[in-house]
Amino acid sequence: MQLAMLEDEILPFDKLDNIYLDRGFYFGDGVYEVVRSYSGKIFAIEEHLERLKRNLSEINITGVDINTIHSKINTAFEQASISNAKIYLQITRGSAARNHTWEPAIKPNFFMTITELPDDKIDKKQGVAVVTCPDLRWKRCDIKSLNLLPNVLARQYAAEKGCAEAILINDDGLITEGAASTFFALFGKTLQTTPLTENVLPSITRKYVLKAAQNIDLTIKEDYLTPQKAIQAEELFIAVTTKDIVPVIKFDDHIISDGKPGKSTKSIMDEFLTFTH
Amino acid sequence: MQLAMLEDEILPFDKLDNIYLDRGFYFGDGVYEVVRSYSGKIFAIEEHLERLKRNLSEINITGVDINTIHSKINTAFEQASISNAKIYLQITRGSAARNHTWEPAIKPNFFMTITELPDDKIDKKQGVAVVTCPDLRWKRCDIKSLNLLPNVLARQYAAEKGCAEAILINDDGLITEGAASTFFALFGKTLQTTPLTENVLPSITRKYVLKAAQNIDLTIKEDYLTPQKAIQAEELFIAVTTKDIVPVIKFDDHIISDGKPGKSTKSIMDEFLTFTH
Repeated sequence: MQLAMLEDEILPFDKLDNIYLDRGFYFGDGVYEVVRSYSGKIFAIEEHLERLKRNLSEINITGVDINTIHSKINTAFEQASISNAKIYLQITRGSAARNHTWEPAIKPNFFMTITELPDDKIDKKQGVAVVTCPDLRWKRCDIKSLNLLPNVLARQYAAEKGCAEAILINDDGLITEGAASTFFALFGKTLQTTPLTENVLPSITRKYVLKAAQNIDLTIKEDYLTPQKAIQAEELFIAVTTKDIVPVIKFDDHIISDGKPGKSTKSIMDEFLTFTH
Repeated sequence: MQLAMLEDEILPFDKLDNIYLDRGFYFGDGVYEVVRSYSGKIFAIEEHLERLKRNLSEINITGVDINTIHSKINTAFEQASISNAKIYLQITRGSAARNHTWEPAIKPNFFMTITELPDDKIDKKQGVAVVTCPDLRWKRCDIKSLNLLPNVLARQYAAEKGCAEAILINDDGLITEGAASTFFALFGKTLQTTPLTENVLPSITRKYVLKAAQNIDLTIKEDYLTPQKAIQAEELFIAVTTKDIVPVIKFDDHIISDGKPGKSTKSIMDEFLTFTH
């Protein structure tokens, strides 16, 4: 008889809950978004849903109505009634007996959590340390997929070094991005970050950071940085939905400038606040 | 209140079943093995468990006793009583609220299925077609991890082209392996396959194929092939646990030799049978 085993429990295969047939579970065959609210208002939801739609399309997950997803987010967010919430949602291709290929009729699975998002004020005020490590990820990092093992390993490596983020370096010795953030460097009045290609995530926060920087008359340079160049920057910071902007004061063994969050970073943070509040 | 949403159902976050907190689900943070039995006997279990142990170690999943896993497999296999069984097992890092980094105390999750394995006699007898596509996978394909989205997309692409497998081509134009198999080419009395590096899976079936080939006095050449070279081979085949050896008679648009499974491939298949029966 076909069967399954969960820890020490043996059960008939056909009694397995649908979740154990989720292709997200076997293959990471799905995409996700992390959205947040500020003071009871969801930020940049349209951009996140637009990206979700594109990601679903890129991996050929069909049959997802984005307006329905939007309604689900609104319904659950209202019910959660959390002022500063982290909204995590994932859509997998669906459930089926394990087989790499899928049937056209497969129906996507939706999963979402809405949890409290603590504002990491200390990191924002004092800045954080980051460490470089090789970018081992696949070649379509523009797709926000559930294949996150290299990101997980990089971030754990960073944490064990007492760092808040791993900055990923590709085979050409260039910085792509943080394992879960976009990386920025300030040289005078120029803000530099990696250009958008198939190797980095088109971050929504990145977009707003660039907008904020332009609003305060900084020049934007979308070009690759090496670690050697990055440590010469006057200021560094990372950006991600759940933390928005976090100053970087140490890069590998190098203290950046005077080891304190820089003035332009603070100005960008202030300007960013006008979008979110 | 922190909450979760599964399809249309909203529930408190702390009522979520543990499986929804499985890091395999969020990150593909786990490894797997596929083992099979022939006529009621599990094949090459020691090698599979040895590889599993190595893979767990490579991604720093600790606290798994391989002997316990072995016992679980034996217990469930005996209970299933399936002569030609496919044994799929995965171990993820464990369950926790979603966060890239993990706590040292996290406890791994074990999941296994034992299902009927149909012997694909027609493919073995007639041979199959394969199609090339870019190898988009991460840089540690020697680890049998749950990050399989590029494999899934490649195999779906192949299936839609009427092919049984996608043969992956790296940035240098070299064949790495099939999306779920090892690729072999025969040139006279020489059997060629990709060398083992961090970019291919150290396949157990590959090992037995090489052993079988040596037993029938073929020379082994572990070196990269280009697609241009592969189509000049007298014979091609792929190998994977669930199907062992399958002749390849068409490679992209090219018919290999006379379009029928080759003699040396058949000899290797016969010799392989002596290991499994």
